[in-house]
Amino acid sequence: MNAAVVKGKLTGVGTGPGDPELLTLKAVRAIREADVIAFFCKKGSGGNGRAIVEAHVRPGTAELPLVYPVTVETQKDEADYRGPIADFFDRSAEEIAAQLDAGKNVTVLSEGDPLFYGSYMHLHVRLADRYQAEVVAGVTAMSGCWSMTGLPLVQGDDILSVLPGTLSEEKLVERLSDTDGAVIMKVGRNLPKIRRALAAVGKLSGSLYVERGTMANGAAVRLEERDESPAPYFSLVLVPGWKARPVQAVAPREETVAVLEVGK
Amino acid sequence: MNAAVVKGKLTGVGTGPGDPELLTLKAVRAIREADVIAFFCKKGSGGNGRAIVEAHVRPGTAELPLVYPVTVETQKDEADYRGPIADFFDRSAEEIAAQLDAGKNVTVLSEGDPLFYGSYMHLHVRLADRYQAEVVAGVTAMSGCWSMTGLPLVQGDDILSVLPGTLSEEKLVERLSDTDGAVIMKVGRNLPKIRRALAAVGKLSGSLYVERGTMANGAAVRLEERDESPAPYFSLVLVPGWKARPVQAVAPREETVAVLEVGK
Ligand SMILES: C[S@@+](CC[C@H](N)C(=O)[O-])C[C@H]1O[C@@H](n2cnc3c(N)ncnc32)[C@H](O)[C@@H]1O
Ligand SMILES: C[S@@+](CC[C@H](N)C(=O)[O-])C[C@H]1O[C@@H](n2cnc3c(N)ncnc32)[C@H](O)[C@@H]1O
Repeated sequence: MNAAVVKGKLTGVGTGPGDPELLTLKAVRAIREADVIAFFCKKGSGGNGRAIVEAHVRPGTAELPLVYPVTVETQKDEADYRGPIADFFDRSAEEIAAQLDAGKNVTVLSEGDPLFYGSYMHLHVRLADRYQAEVVAGVTAMSGCWSMTGLPLVQGDDILSVLPGTLSEEKLVERLSDTDGAVIMKVGRNLPKIRRALAAVGKLSGSLYVERGTMANGAAVRLEERDESPAPYFSLVLVPGWKARPVQAVAPREETVAVLEVGK
Repeated sequence: MNAAVVKGKLTGVGTGPGDPELLTLKAVRAIREADVIAFFCKKGSGGNGRAIVEAHVRPGTAELPLVYPVTVETQKDEADYRGPIADFFDRSAEEIAAQLDAGKNVTVLSEGDPLFYGSYMHLHVRLADRYQAEVVAGVTAMSGCWSMTGLPLVQGDDILSVLPGTLSEEKLVERLSDTDGAVIMKVGRNLPKIRRALAAVGKLSGSLYVERGTMANGAAVRLEERDESPAPYFSLVLVPGWKARPVQAVAPREETVAVLEVGK
């Protein structure tokens, strides 16, 4: 490696929830200007973030897929997932560092917003002290989902809680009773538990289930009406906070139907 | 009014946290295609959302400023603010309805994301059952702020709480001790109270104060180092969730300095 080479810049770019039009102008610029585009993906998949930005990648741009090892994928929800995933992020960071050392500007794609539960953060904390680094904020999945359904969750002095569906039923009940609005991510096989917890605190009937929000095949239904089959990776639950609304609010049932129709 | 006129469409558009490049492609299109652009503003101010979109407004587009009445502005944090603000939203909705009835497509600008504590939601719930309506998700202020500072708040199975700084000190302590990451909005005169609450739960030293995040004159400092003068409207506090991090995390102090430098 030539010591005179000016090091490249690292840019973590949010690709938004799925609709390619929800990319920011800044994201488009970072993608167009990249020497190398890196993105996380599963083995055998092209990566969802990569698909979202397709229209903006200059021909000839180098691509660096960061393929989750299968062991990591299967253990993702396990407590002892620390070792393998940390190793994977270490290796990924070094692959990117090699490009930066060679003077290449590397844009890392990150679904939604990069620092909001995104894998990109693990690269950022490993590289940002060694290289010029910038994070381009993106539209989160939850914003995409409540916008698509036209359902406001919080206003004024409401509290919003973002909860993983992996919490125990007891914890979910505690958290849901103690907040105004809530978003429950990581639904998957946790769907029946989430539904029981919401019913226990009287918030089931107002809640919506959203799948592949803002994507071409996105859909939303009342959580009450969703069947019990496991939810796909791209799904979440929206729980509106009805308490202490200073102005006349959406009626939990009827209006939700209206906004669902409107939002589509 | 001519009964044969096809009614216009209502579009609520998120303008992002401040950087005009954080507009989405979809927002730009909705602004370009609008017959009428509506936006909330204070008396004597052009509106922050309107300034963000300046480059994209077609010459000749009609503009409809929705000027907060002074009584509403001063009472904004009071409990008995319901009456005047509801009246204001009623009137604003009817002004927009008149345009929609006349067949005009109306794009309403909303800072950040429209349905995340945004005034737009009060128009949406009043109009979405009567007119074709769409919400274009935007980048929230909190995403803009943590991206600018390069500080990830939550990952994996962390809980994120979005709290208003108007909560009592006791409530703040309770909420902050009971979450992983937190964002505290509406800082204003609540700054000393917020700082005391964070100190009480041992989370002060890792917290950042961000002012006018992603705007041209944006700034971030450790909350510990911020003076006690009231914070401007566009400010918030970021509280990273350090607990249960599966991988090696940002060190609360040193790394924050690094990311702050990097983020600018
Ligand atoms: C690892 S987190 C990434 C979040 C992302 N960085 C963001 O800003 O929203 C993945 C979770 O986001 C949610 N998610 C992501 N995209 C989604 C979509 N288009 N519709 C519904 N949920 C989505 C799912 O709950 C999933 O478990
Ligand atoms: C009524 S809420 C609107 C939130 C907005 N709809 C969003 O999506 O973020 C206003 C609060 O957002 C925060 N805020 C908005 N823009 C900001 C910015 N650029 N920097 C820091 N805080 C900001 C402040 O805490 C302020 O009290």
